[in-house]
Amino acid sequence: MTYQLHYWPTIQGRGEFVRLALEAAGVDYVDVARELPAAGGGEAALMRRVRDPHNPFAPFAPPFLVHGDITIGQTAAILLYLGPRLHLVGESEEARIWTHQLQLTIADVVAEAHDTHHPVGTGLYYEDQQPEARRVAQSFRDERIPKFLGWFEQVLQRNPAGDTHLVGSALSYADLSLFQLVAGLQYAFPKATARALAKAPSVARLHTNVARRQRVHEYLHSPRRIPFNEDGIFRRYPELDA
Amino acid sequence: MTYQLHYWPTIQGRGEFVRLALEAAGVDYVDVARELPAAGGGEAALMRRVRDPHNPFAPFAPPFLVHGDITIGQTAAILLYLGPRLHLVGESEEARIWTHQLQLTIADVVAEAHDTHHPVGTGLYYEDQQPEARRVAQSFRDERIPKFLGWFEQVLQRNPAGDTHLVGSALSYADLSLFQLVAGLQYAFPKATARALAKAPSVARLHTNVARRQRVHEYLHSPRRIPFNEDGIFRRYPELDA
Repeated sequence: MTYQLHYWPTIQGRGEFVRLALEAAGVDYVDVARELPAAGGGEAALMRRVRDPHNPFAPFAPPFLVHGDITIGQTAAILLYLGPRLHLVGESEEARIWTHQLQLTIADVVAEAHDTHHPVGTGLYYEDQQPEARRVAQSFRDERIPKFLGWFEQVLQRNPAGDTHLVGSALSYADLSLFQLVAGLQYAFPKATARALAKAPSVARLHTNVARRQRVHEYLHSPRRIPFNEDGIFRRYPELDA
Repeated sequence: MTYQLHYWPTIQGRGEFVRLALEAAGVDYVDVARELPAAGGGEAALMRRVRDPHNPFAPFAPPFLVHGDITIGQTAAILLYLGPRLHLVGESEEARIWTHQLQLTIADVVAEAHDTHHPVGTGLYYEDQQPEARRVAQSFRDERIPKFLGWFEQVLQRNPAGDTHLVGSALSYADLSLFQLVAGLQYAFPKATARALAKAPSVARLHTNVARRQRVHEYLHSPRRIPFNEDGIFRRYPELDA
Protein backbone atom coordinates (compact mmCIF):
# COMPACT_ATOMS: atom_id res chain seq x y z
CA MET A 1 0.00 0.00 0.00
CA THR A 2 1.35 3.37 -1.04
CA TYR A 3 1.48 6.09 1.57
CA GLN A 4 -0.64 9.06 0.56
CA LEU A 5 0.45 12.30 2.17
CA HIS A 6 -2.14 15.07 2.13
CA TYR A 7 -0.74 18.54 2.64
CA TRP A 8 -0.71 21.99 1.09
CA PRO A 9 1.15 21.78 -2.23
CA THR A 10 3.13 25.04 -2.11
CA ILE A 11 4.74 25.07 1.34
CA GLN A 12 7.00 22.90 3.49
CA GLY A 13 5.00 23.58 6.63
CA ARG A 14 4.19 20.74 8.99
CA GLY A 15 3.91 18.32 6.08
CA GLU A 16 7.66 18.57 5.55
CA PHE A 17 8.36 16.51 8.66
CA VAL A 18 6.40 13.67 7.06
CA ARG A 19 7.95 14.17 3.61
CA LEU A 20 11.43 13.97 5.13
CA ALA A 21 10.66 10.68 6.89
CA LEU A 22 9.23 9.13 3.71
CA GLU A 23 12.15 10.41 1.61
CA ALA A 24 14.84 9.32 4.08
CA ALA A 25 13.32 5.83 4.17
CA GLY A 26 13.23 5.65 0.38
CA VAL A 27 9.64 4.38 0.22
CA ASP A 28 7.06 5.08 -2.45
CA TYR A 29 4.56 7.75 -1.55
CA VAL A 30 2.20 10.14 -3.22
CA ASP A 31 2.11 13.82 -2.25
CA VAL A 32 -1.55 14.00 -3.22
CA ALA A 33 -2.13 17.74 -3.54
CA ARG A 34 0.95 18.07 -5.74
CA GLU A 35 -0.33 15.55 -8.29
CA LEU A 36 -2.31 16.74 -11.28
CA PRO A 37 -6.06 17.12 -10.77
CA ALA A 38 -6.56 14.83 -13.77
CA ALA A 39 -4.68 12.14 -11.81
CA GLY A 40 -6.90 12.61 -8.74
CA GLY A 41 -4.57 15.16 -7.18
CA GLY A 42 -4.56 18.87 -6.47
CA GLU A 43 -5.72 20.86 -3.50
CA ALA A 44 -9.32 19.89 -4.31
CA ALA A 45 -8.49 16.23 -3.61
CA LEU A 46 -7.10 17.21 -0.22
CA MET A 47 -10.15 19.29 0.69
CA ARG A 48 -12.51 16.54 -0.45
CA ARG A 49 -11.00 14.26 2.19
CA VAL A 50 -11.18 16.88 4.93
CA ARG A 51 -14.83 17.63 4.12
CA ASP A 52 -15.95 14.06 3.37
CA PRO A 53 -19.10 13.72 5.50
CA HIS A 54 -18.79 9.94 5.53
CA ASN A 55 -15.30 9.80 6.99
CA PRO A 56 -15.49 9.25 10.77
CA PHE A 57 -11.75 9.98 10.98
CA ALA A 58 -11.72 13.25 9.03
CA PRO A 59 -8.78 15.16 10.54
CA PHE A 60 -8.92 18.64 11.99
CA ALA A 61 -6.37 19.94 9.50
CA PRO A 62 -3.60 18.85 7.10
CA PRO A 63 -1.17 17.18 7.13
CA PHE A 64 -2.78 13.80 7.18
CA LEU A 65 -1.71 10.44 5.91
CA VAL A 66 -3.93 7.91 4.19
CA HIS A 67 -2.61 4.35 4.26
CA GLY A 68 -5.09 1.73 3.12
CA ASP A 69 -8.18 2.15 5.28
CA ILE A 70 -6.52 4.34 7.89
CA THR A 71 -6.44 8.14 7.96
CA ILE A 72 -4.10 9.82 10.46
CA GLY A 73 -3.86 13.53 11.19
CA GLN A 74 -1.45 15.44 13.44
CA THR A 75 2.19 15.41 12.35
CA ALA A 76 3.49 13.69 15.48
CA ALA A 77 0.80 10.98 15.27
CA ILE A 78 1.70 10.36 11.62
CA LEU A 79 5.35 9.90 12.58
CA LEU A 80 4.35 7.67 15.50
CA TYR A 81 2.58 5.45 12.96
CA LEU A 82 5.31 5.61 10.32
CA GLY A 83 8.29 5.25 12.66
CA PRO A 84 8.32 1.45 13.02
CA ARG A 85 7.19 0.90 9.41
CA LEU A 86 10.02 3.05 8.00
CA HIS A 87 12.58 1.76 10.53
CA LEU A 88 12.98 5.29 11.83
CA VAL A 89 12.56 4.46 15.51
CA GLY A 90 14.05 1.95 17.93
CA GLU A 91 12.39 -1.33 18.87
CA SER A 92 11.92 -0.83 22.61
CA GLU A 93 8.97 1.00 24.17
CA GLU A 94 11.47 3.28 25.94
CA ALA A 95 13.06 4.30 22.64
CA ARG A 96 9.69 4.82 20.98
CA ILE A 97 8.21 6.99 23.71
CA TRP A 98 11.42 9.04 24.04
CA THR A 99 11.57 9.61 20.28
CA HIS A 100 7.94 10.67 20.34
CA GLN A 101 8.56 13.03 23.26
CA LEU A 102 11.36 14.68 21.28
CA GLN A 103 9.02 15.04 18.29
CA LEU A 104 6.34 16.66 20.47
CA THR A 105 8.87 19.16 21.78
CA ILE A 106 9.89 19.98 18.20
CA ALA A 107 6.19 20.48 17.44
CA ASP A 108 6.04 22.99 20.30
CA VAL A 109 8.89 25.01 18.78
CA VAL A 110 7.23 24.88 15.36
CA ALA A 111 3.98 26.26 16.83
CA GLU A 112 5.91 29.06 18.54
CA ALA A 113 7.79 29.85 15.32
CA HIS A 114 4.46 30.16 13.53
CA ASP A 115 3.15 32.48 16.22
CA THR A 116 6.02 34.93 15.67
CA HIS A 117 4.36 36.08 12.44
CA HIS A 118 0.77 35.21 13.37
CA PRO A 119 0.52 36.01 17.08
CA VAL A 120 -3.06 37.29 16.95
CA GLY A 121 -4.77 34.91 14.58
CA THR A 122 -4.32 32.75 11.51
CA GLY A 123 -7.30 34.50 9.91
CA LEU A 124 -5.41 37.81 9.69
CA TYR A 125 -2.54 38.85 7.44
CA TYR A 126 0.93 39.32 8.90
CA GLU A 127 0.70 43.01 8.01
CA ASP A 128 -2.30 43.36 10.32
CA GLN A 129 -0.47 42.01 13.36
CA GLN A 130 3.01 43.42 12.90
CA PRO A 131 3.37 45.30 16.22
CA GLU A 132 2.44 42.12 18.11
CA ALA A 133 4.70 40.06 15.85
CA ARG A 134 7.71 42.20 16.74
CA ARG A 135 7.24 41.65 20.45
CA VAL A 136 6.62 37.92 20.10
CA ALA A 137 9.60 37.47 17.78
CA GLN A 138 11.91 39.22 20.23
CA SER A 139 10.92 36.86 23.02
CA PHE A 140 11.20 33.86 20.66
CA ARG A 141 14.69 34.92 19.50
CA ASP A 142 16.11 35.91 22.86
CA GLU A 143 14.62 33.25 25.10
CA ARG A 144 12.91 30.42 23.30
CA ILE A 145 15.34 29.52 20.50
CA PRO A 146 18.32 29.31 22.90
CA LYS A 147 16.28 27.39 25.47
CA PHE A 148 14.93 24.82 23.00
CA LEU A 149 18.19 24.30 21.08
CA GLY A 150 20.03 24.16 24.42
CA TRP A 151 17.75 21.34 25.53
CA PHE A 152 18.32 19.37 22.33
CA GLU A 153 22.06 19.92 22.79
CA GLN A 154 21.73 18.44 26.27
CA VAL A 155 19.81 15.45 24.88
CA LEU A 156 22.58 14.80 22.36
CA GLN A 157 25.36 15.29 24.91
CA ARG A 158 23.74 12.88 27.34
CA ASN A 159 22.84 10.19 24.82
CA PRO A 160 24.70 7.15 26.21
CA ALA A 161 25.33 6.01 22.60
CA GLY A 162 27.04 9.27 21.66
CA ASP A 163 26.02 12.67 20.36
CA THR A 164 25.49 11.77 16.70
CA HIS A 165 21.82 10.87 17.05
CA LEU A 166 19.10 11.96 19.44
CA VAL A 167 18.10 8.40 20.34
CA GLY A 168 20.56 5.51 20.40
CA SER A 169 23.00 5.11 17.55
CA ALA A 170 20.70 5.08 14.53
CA LEU A 171 18.74 7.64 12.56
CA SER A 172 15.23 8.28 13.90
CA TYR A 173 12.42 10.51 12.73
CA ALA A 174 13.33 12.86 15.58
CA ASP A 175 16.77 13.43 13.98
CA LEU A 176 15.10 14.27 10.66
CA SER A 177 12.69 16.62 12.41
CA LEU A 178 15.47 18.36 14.33
CA PHE A 179 17.29 18.85 11.02
CA GLN A 180 14.13 20.45 9.60
CA LEU A 181 13.61 22.61 12.67
CA VAL A 182 17.16 23.97 12.43
CA ALA A 183 16.79 24.54 8.68
CA GLY A 184 13.59 26.48 9.26
CA LEU A 185 15.02 28.55 12.08
CA GLN A 186 18.09 29.34 9.98
CA TYR A 187 15.83 30.54 7.19
CA ALA A 188 13.52 32.64 9.36
CA PHE A 189 15.92 33.92 12.02
CA PRO A 190 19.43 33.60 10.55
CA LYS A 191 21.14 35.86 13.07
CA ALA A 192 19.44 34.59 16.19
CA THR A 193 19.83 30.97 15.12
CA ALA A 194 23.54 31.36 14.37
CA ARG A 195 24.03 32.70 17.91
CA ALA A 196 22.10 29.80 19.44
CA LEU A 197 23.84 27.15 17.33
CA ALA A 198 27.25 28.47 18.40
CA LYS A 199 26.28 27.21 21.85
CA ALA A 200 24.75 23.98 20.55
CA PRO A 201 27.54 22.41 18.48
CA SER A 202 26.10 18.89 18.50
CA VAL A 203 22.78 20.18 17.18
CA ALA A 204 24.61 22.06 14.43
CA ARG A 205 26.57 18.90 13.54
CA LEU A 206 23.42 16.75 13.49
CA HIS A 207 21.86 19.25 11.08
CA THR A 208 24.89 18.99 8.77
CA ASN A 209 25.08 15.20 9.02
CA VAL A 210 21.42 14.64 8.22
CA ALA A 211 21.64 16.90 5.16
CA ARG A 212 24.56 14.77 3.90
CA ARG A 213 22.75 11.44 4.09
CA GLN A 214 22.39 10.21 0.53
CA ARG A 215 18.60 10.04 0.23
CA VAL A 216 18.11 13.26 2.17
CA HIS A 217 20.76 15.03 0.06
CA GLU A 218 19.09 13.87 -3.15
CA TYR A 219 15.70 14.98 -1.89
CA LEU A 220 16.91 18.41 -0.79
CA HIS A 221 18.37 18.99 -4.26
CA SER A 222 15.32 17.71 -6.12
CA PRO A 223 12.23 19.64 -7.23
CA ARG A 224 10.28 17.66 -4.64
CA ARG A 225 11.76 19.91 -1.94
CA ILE A 226 9.64 23.06 -1.96
CA PRO A 227 11.81 26.09 -1.15
CA PHE A 228 11.10 27.97 2.07
CA ASN A 229 8.76 30.87 1.38
CA GLU A 230 6.63 33.48 3.11
CA ASP A 231 3.46 31.37 3.03
CA GLY A 232 4.92 28.64 5.23
CA ILE A 233 5.61 28.33 8.93
CA PHE A 234 9.19 29.59 8.78
CA ARG A 235 9.13 33.02 7.11
CA ARG A 236 11.99 35.39 6.53
CA TYR A 237 10.79 38.77 7.68
CA PRO A 238 14.08 40.59 8.38
CA GLU A 239 12.37 42.94 10.83
CA LEU A 240 11.66 39.93 13.07
CA ASP A 241 15.31 38.80 13.25
CA ALA A 242 18.11 40.59 15.07
CA MET B 1 5.45 0.29 40.63
CA THR B 2 3.69 3.46 41.69
CA TYR B 3 3.22 6.14 39.08
CA GLN B 4 4.97 9.35 40.09
CA LEU B 5 3.50 12.45 38.48
CA HIS B 6 5.72 15.50 38.55
CA TYR B 7 3.93 18.76 38.05
CA TRP B 8 3.47 22.21 39.59
CA PRO B 9 1.65 21.77 42.91
CA THR B 10 -0.72 24.75 42.80
CA ILE B 11 -2.32 24.60 39.35
CA GLN B 12 -4.30 22.17 37.21
CA GLY B 13 -2.39 23.10 34.06
CA ARG B 14 -1.25 20.39 31.69
CA GLY B 15 -0.67 18.00 34.60
CA GLU B 16 -4.43 17.79 35.14
CA PHE B 17 -4.86 15.67 32.01
CA VAL B 18 -2.59 13.08 33.62
CA ARG B 19 -4.18 13.39 37.07
CA LEU B 20 -7.61 12.76 35.54
CA ALA B 21 -6.45 9.60 33.78
CA LEU B 22 -4.84 8.24 36.95
CA GLU B 23 -7.90 9.14 39.05
CA ALA B 24 -10.43 7.74 36.58
CA ALA B 25 -8.50 4.47 36.48
CA GLY B 26 -8.38 4.28 40.26
CA VAL B 27 -4.67 3.46 40.42
CA ASP B 28 -2.19 4.45 43.10
CA TYR B 29 -0.04 7.42 42.20
CA VAL B 30 2.03 10.08 43.87
CA ASP B 31 1.67 13.73 42.92
CA VAL B 32 5.27 14.37 43.90
CA ALA B 33 5.40 18.14 44.21
CA ARG B 34 2.29 18.10 46.40
CA GLU B 35 3.88 15.74 48.95
CA LEU B 36 5.70 17.15 51.96
CA PRO B 37 9.38 17.98 51.43
CA ALA B 38 10.16 15.75 54.42
CA ALA B 39 8.61 12.86 52.45
CA GLY B 40 10.75 13.61 49.39
CA GLY B 41 8.13 15.87 47.85
CA GLY B 42 7.66 19.56 47.16
CA GLU B 43 8.59 21.67 44.19
CA ALA B 44 12.27 21.13 44.98
CA ALA B 45 11.90 17.42 44.27
CA LEU B 46 10.39 18.23 40.90
CA MET B 47 13.17 20.67 39.98
CA ARG B 48 15.85 18.22 41.13
CA ARG B 49 14.63 15.77 38.48
CA VAL B 50 14.48 18.41 35.75
CA ARG B 51 18.01 19.59 36.58
CA ASP B 52 19.55 16.19 37.30
CA PRO B 53 22.73 16.26 35.17
CA HIS B 54 22.89 12.45 35.13
CA ASN B 55 19.43 11.87 33.67
CA PRO B 56 19.68 11.37 29.89
CA PHE B 57 15.89 11.64 29.69
CA ALA B 58 15.46 14.88 31.64
CA PRO B 59 12.32 16.41 30.14
CA PHE B 60 12.04 19.91 28.70
CA ALA B 61 9.33 20.87 31.19
CA PRO B 62 6.72 19.45 33.59
CA PRO B 63 4.50 17.49 33.54
CA PHE B 64 6.52 14.33 33.48
CA LEU B 65 5.86 10.85 34.75
CA VAL B 66 8.37 8.60 36.46
CA HIS B 67 7.50 4.92 36.38
CA GLY B 68 10.27 2.62 37.52
CA ASP B 69 13.28 3.41 35.35
CA ILE B 70 11.38 5.39 32.75
CA THR B 71 10.84 9.17 32.69
CA ILE B 72 8.32 10.56 30.21
CA GLY B 73 7.64 14.20 29.47
CA GLN B 74 5.00 15.81 27.23
CA THR B 75 1.40 15.34 28.33
CA ALA B 76 0.32 13.49 25.19
CA ALA B 77 3.30 11.12 25.39
CA ILE B 78 2.49 10.38 29.04
CA LEU B 79 -1.07 9.48 28.08
CA LEU B 80 0.19 7.40 25.16
CA TYR B 81 2.23 5.41 27.69
CA LEU B 82 -0.51 5.22 30.33
CA GLY B 83 -3.43 4.51 27.98
CA PRO B 84 -3.00 0.73 27.62
CA ARG B 85 -1.81 0.32 31.22
CA LEU B 86 -4.88 2.10 32.64
CA HIS B 87 -7.28 0.52 30.10
CA LEU B 88 -8.10 3.98 28.82
CA VAL B 89 -7.57 3.23 25.13
CA GLY B 90 -8.74 0.55 22.69
CA GLU B 91 -6.71 -2.51 21.76
CA SER B 92 -6.29 -1.93 18.03
CA GLU B 93 -3.61 0.25 16.47
CA GLU B 94 -6.36 2.21 14.71
CA ALA B 95 -8.06 3.03 18.01
CA ARG B 96 -4.78 3.96 19.66
CA ILE B 97 -3.57 6.28 16.95
CA TRP B 98 -7.00 7.94 16.61
CA THR B 99 -7.22 8.47 20.38
CA HIS B 100 -3.74 9.96 20.31
CA GLN B 101 -4.63 12.24 17.40
CA LEU B 102 -7.62 13.54 19.38
CA GLN B 103 -5.34 14.16 22.37
CA LEU B 104 -2.88 16.10 20.22
CA THR B 105 -5.69 18.27 18.89
CA ILE B 106 -6.81 18.94 22.48
CA ALA B 107 -3.20 19.89 23.24
CA ASP B 108 -3.35 22.41 20.38
CA VAL B 109 -6.43 24.06 21.91
CA VAL B 110 -4.75 24.13 25.33
CA ALA B 111 -1.72 25.90 23.86
CA GLU B 112 -3.96 28.44 22.15
CA ALA B 113 -5.93 29.00 25.38
CA HIS B 114 -2.64 29.70 27.16
CA ASP B 115 -1.65 32.17 24.48
CA THR B 116 -4.79 34.25 25.04
CA HIS B 117 -3.29 35.59 28.26
CA HIS B 118 0.37 35.17 27.34
CA PRO B 119 0.53 35.99 23.63
CA VAL B 120 3.93 37.71 23.76
CA GLY B 121 5.92 35.53 26.12
CA THR B 122 5.72 33.35 29.20
CA GLY B 123 8.47 35.45 30.79
CA LEU B 124 6.19 38.51 31.02
CA TYR B 125 3.21 39.19 33.26
CA TYR B 126 -0.29 39.23 31.81
CA GLU B 127 -0.52 42.91 32.71
CA ASP B 128 2.41 43.63 30.41
CA GLN B 129 0.77 42.07 27.36
CA GLN B 130 -2.85 43.04 27.82
CA PRO B 131 -3.45 44.85 24.50
CA GLU B 132 -2.13 41.83 22.62
CA ALA B 133 -4.12 39.49 24.87
CA ARG B 134 -7.38 41.26 23.99
CA ARG B 135 -6.84 40.77 20.28
CA VAL B 136 -5.76 37.15 20.62
CA ALA B 137 -8.67 36.35 22.94
CA GLN B 138 -11.17 37.79 20.50
CA SER B 139 -9.91 35.58 17.70
CA PHE B 140 -9.82 32.57 20.06
CA ARG B 141 -13.41 33.19 21.22
CA ASP B 142 -14.94 34.01 17.86
CA GLU B 143 -13.13 31.56 15.61
CA ARG B 144 -11.09 28.95 17.41
CA ILE B 145 -13.40 27.76 20.22
CA PRO B 146 -16.33 27.20 17.81
CA LYS B 147 -14.06 25.54 15.24
CA PHE B 148 -12.41 23.15 17.70
CA LEU B 149 -15.58 22.23 19.61
CA GLY B 150 -17.38 21.87 16.28
CA TRP B 151 -14.78 19.36 15.17
CA PHE B 152 -15.10 17.32 18.37
CA GLU B 153 -18.89 17.42 17.90
CA GLN B 154 -18.38 16.00 14.42
CA VAL B 155 -16.12 13.26 15.78
CA LEU B 156 -18.79 12.26 18.32
CA GLN B 157 -21.62 12.42 15.76
CA ARG B 158 -19.70 10.25 13.34
CA ASN B 159 -18.50 7.66 15.84
CA PRO B 160 -19.95 4.43 14.46
CA ALA B 161 -20.42 3.20 18.04
CA GLY B 162 -22.53 6.24 19.01
CA ASP B 163 -21.95 9.74 20.31
CA THR B 164 -21.31 8.91 23.97
CA HIS B 165 -17.55 8.45 23.60
CA LEU B 166 -14.97 9.88 21.23
CA VAL B 167 -13.55 6.48 20.31
CA GLY B 168 -15.64 3.32 20.23
CA SER B 169 -18.03 2.59 23.10
CA ALA B 170 -15.74 2.84 26.12
CA LEU B 171 -14.08 5.62 28.09
CA SER B 172 -10.69 6.68 26.75
CA TYR B 173 -8.16 9.24 27.94
CA ALA B 174 -9.36 11.47 25.09
CA ASP B 175 -12.84 11.63 26.68
CA LEU B 176 -11.29 12.63 30.00
CA SER B 177 -9.17 15.26 28.26
CA LEU B 178 -12.14 16.68 26.34
CA PHE B 179 -14.00 16.92 29.66
CA GLN B 180 -11.08 18.88 31.08
CA LEU B 181 -10.82 21.10 28.02
CA VAL B 182 -14.50 22.02 28.25
CA ALA B 183 -14.21 22.61 32.01
CA GLY B 184 -11.26 24.92 31.44
CA LEU B 185 -12.94 26.82 28.61
CA GLN B 186 -16.10 27.23 30.73
CA TYR B 187 -13.98 28.68 33.51
CA ALA B 188 -11.96 31.04 31.35
CA PHE B 189 -14.50 32.02 28.69
CA PRO B 190 -17.95 31.28 30.18
CA LYS B 191 -19.92 33.33 27.66
CA ALA B 192 -18.08 32.27 24.51
CA THR B 193 -18.02 28.62 25.60
CA ALA B 194 -21.75 28.57 26.34
CA ARG B 195 -22.41 29.84 22.81
CA ALA B 196 -20.14 27.21 21.27
CA LEU B 197 -21.55 24.36 23.38
CA ALA B 198 -25.09 25.25 22.31
CA LYS B 199 -23.97 24.15 18.84
CA ALA B 200 -22.05 21.11 20.16
CA PRO B 201 -24.65 19.22 22.22
CA SER B 202 -22.77 15.90 22.17
CA VAL B 203 -19.63 17.58 23.50
CA ALA B 204 -21.67 19.21 26.26
CA ARG B 205 -23.23 15.84 27.15
CA LEU B 206 -19.85 14.10 27.19
CA HIS B 207 -18.60 16.75 29.61
CA THR B 208 -21.57 16.12 31.92
CA ASN B 209 -21.30 12.33 31.66
CA VAL B 210 -17.59 12.23 32.45
CA ALA B 211 -18.10 14.44 35.52
CA ARG B 212 -20.72 11.97 36.78
CA ARG B 213 -18.53 8.89 36.59
CA GLN B 214 -18.03 7.69 40.14
CA ARG B 215 -14.25 7.98 40.43
CA VAL B 216 -14.15 11.25 38.50
CA HIS B 217 -16.99 12.68 40.61
CA GLU B 218 -15.19 11.73 43.82
CA TYR B 219 -11.96 13.23 42.56
CA LEU B 220 -13.58 16.50 41.47
CA HIS B 221 -15.10 16.90 44.94
CA SER B 222 -11.91 15.97 46.79
CA PRO B 223 -9.10 18.27 47.93
CA ARG B 224 -6.92 16.56 45.32
CA ARG B 225 -8.66 18.60 42.60
CA ILE B 226 -6.94 21.99 42.65
CA PRO B 227 -9.45 24.75 41.84
CA PHE B 228 -8.97 26.70 38.63
CA ASN B 229 -7.02 29.87 39.33
CA GLU B 230 -5.23 32.71 37.58
CA ASP B 231 -1.82 31.00 37.67
CA GLY B 232 -2.92 28.12 35.45
CA ILE B 233 -3.59 27.74 31.76
CA PHE B 234 -7.29 28.55 31.91
CA ARG B 235 -7.64 31.95 33.59
CA ARG B 236 -10.78 33.95 34.18
CA TYR B 237 -10.01 37.46 33.05
CA PRO B 238 -13.50 38.87 32.35
CA GLU B 239 -12.09 41.41 29.90
CA LEU B 240 -11.02 38.52 27.65
CA ASP B 241 -14.49 36.96 27.47
CA ALA B 242 -17.51 38.40 25.65
